[in-house]
Amino acid sequence: MSQFVFGVDIGGTTVKLGLFTSDGTLLEKWEIPTVTENSGAAILPDVAASINAKIKEKSLSFEQIAGIGLGVPGPVGPDSTVYKCINLGWGVFNLKEEMNRLIPEIPNVAAANDANVAALGELWQGGGKGKNSAVMFTLGTGVGGGVIINGKIVAGANGGGGEVGHIVVEPNETEACNCGKCGCLEQYASANGIVKMAKNMLSKCDTPSALRDMEHFTSKEICDLAREGEKMAGIIIDHCCEYLGRAMSFVACTVDPDVFIIGGGMSRAGCIISDTTFDYYHKYAFHVSNNTTIATAELGNDAGIYGCAKMVLG
Amino acid sequence: MSQFVFGVDIGGTTVKLGLFTSDGTLLEKWEIPTVTENSGAAILPDVAASINAKIKEKSLSFEQIAGIGLGVPGPVGPDSTVYKCINLGWGVFNLKEEMNRLIPEIPNVAAANDANVAALGELWQGGGKGKNSAVMFTLGTGVGGGVIINGKIVAGANGGGGEVGHIVVEPNETEACNCGKCGCLEQYASANGIVKMAKNMLSKCDTPSALRDMEHFTSKEICDLAREGEKMAGIIIDHCCEYLGRAMSFVACTVDPDVFIIGGGMSRAGCIISDTTFDYYHKYAFHVSNNTTIATAELGNDAGIYGCAKMVLG
Repeated sequence: MSQFVFGVDIGGTTVKLGLFTSDGTLLEKWEIPTVTENSGAAILPDVAASINAKIKEKSLSFEQIAGIGLGVPGPVGPDSTVYKCINLGWGVFNLKEEMNRLIPEIPNVAAANDANVAALGELWQGGGKGKNSAVMFTLGTGVGGGVIINGKIVAGANGGGGEVGHIVVEPNETEACNCGKCGCLEQYASANGIVKMAKNMLSKCDTPSALRDMEHFTSKEICDLAREGEKMAGIIIDHCCEYLGRAMSFVACTVDPDVFIIGGGMSRAGCIISDTTFDYYHKYAFHVSNNTTIATAELGNDAGIYGCAKMVLG
Repeated sequence: MSQFVFGVDIGGTTVKLGLFTSDGTLLEKWEIPTVTENSGAAILPDVAASINAKIKEKSLSFEQIAGIGLGVPGPVGPDSTVYKCINLGWGVFNLKEEMNRLIPEIPNVAAANDANVAALGELWQGGGKGKNSAVMFTLGTGVGGGVIINGKIVAGANGGGGEVGHIVVEPNETEACNCGKCGCLEQYASANGIVKMAKNMLSKCDTPSALRDMEHFTSKEICDLAREGEKMAGIIIDHCCEYLGRAMSFVACTVDPDVFIIGGGMSRAGCIISDTTFDYYHKYAFHVSNNTTIATAELGNDAGIYGCAKMVLG
């Protein structure tokens, strides 16, 4: 009987691996470096070797392994084809076929985009536990996300499902986002975006702020100041949360999830983000979805391996 | 063997019924009046009587009927519970249980919101035929919609899935939508909305227009003038399509469908709407979804019965 499953979250610097029981308990997690040289040719062989070593170390048999779930930093088709992962050096190929070649003893392999598997992990064992559907907003260096409906990832026809960071929340913006368009949520609600927005706002007013005395400041410092009650930092956070709440209201009018989950580094600012975002969400949301909960992610960097495991378990 | 299925689209004035083969051919369609008196108590018994009469007329046996699909103008839960239908006078009850009581010989009953079933119908046999996922925007008196992913309706946790007419596309709007919020797509892209927007725009400029000579005008007249090349009518339609394209870009960043489908009375204006909307969609959409097709609905008022039938066939 299958009792175990591997979750493998492949990032640009490290590969995170987890060994789970089929009821969702993380037994052990570890990391290996991501070797991106030579078009990332060593990455999957390294993953396979690490899984084989763990099976040997734990004296498991292949029959006990339900499968392997893979999360990768790029778009993945429903048949496990990966369409370029710039961070890994990968071109286009089928992840399942390649893993099957490397470990034929574990035929069940599933793959998806890393932001999507993180959302699935949070729905399964994190901020959305017990719910059926969730949309996650990951506020990190950029803004990623994932849409889960009836426990399944909505990957999208072109791998664009859950790309909530590129919702144009400010159509009057003239500065361009990394993606080339202007006014994306990522320009205001990512760690980099909020710093840039703060500098802009500071240059256009003379409200006093401790930020004015710093040559460089981070999103964390803005959040900390806002939490300590500084007026200007509060205005900046409020602006970020208005855009975030607005984007969530658009998403609710589309899929009306059970819960929104805020993850990423910015989510560590806690309720100053989630409460203010809820107020704006409530302002813009269609009445039937008015009271949808906004939860905070709970699994941190482990969300990906949880989601990878869940993909396999179905 | 089950060879036939009934699709029943219950509207505020008439109930549309269709008898389909299980491969999707509409054999016959007919209508009965919707009797809303007495809290709509007669509606389902009338539907049952009409289905029983058709079975008798066609000399069918109950074993040949795969099931009955119902579309209703209000929110419907995943277990077929209807949560108030103001147009029908209905309160809260379980549609499947009630139909099972009325026709126990046909146990397989499915129910969903009418805008959602119309979207499913268009995906199955209309503008989205052959695709896997679609989001429909129905531009009628209001703006309704439906989201279909992997051939299944996304009803939403609170029945708010596909409520794309209430995406706030103009956060600076000060006039309220029927829903109570300000700046909903419905205020610019519905038949009523575009007339109101046109009057507003006419009052704020002195561009000549044939509309200025009419005491009352309709959305159709605006579309006709735009198609004939009148500059002012063109500006009005352009404005409507910008909001529509913007809303579609938000939806694409959430679920990235194979195709968008424009339905409702406004869709009869044809490519002047769909082409201009695509230009704006392209401006705002995330690059991976840049080229998603915008199709026109093909089934007209029959979309609902098609979708109802498809719900049963799965």
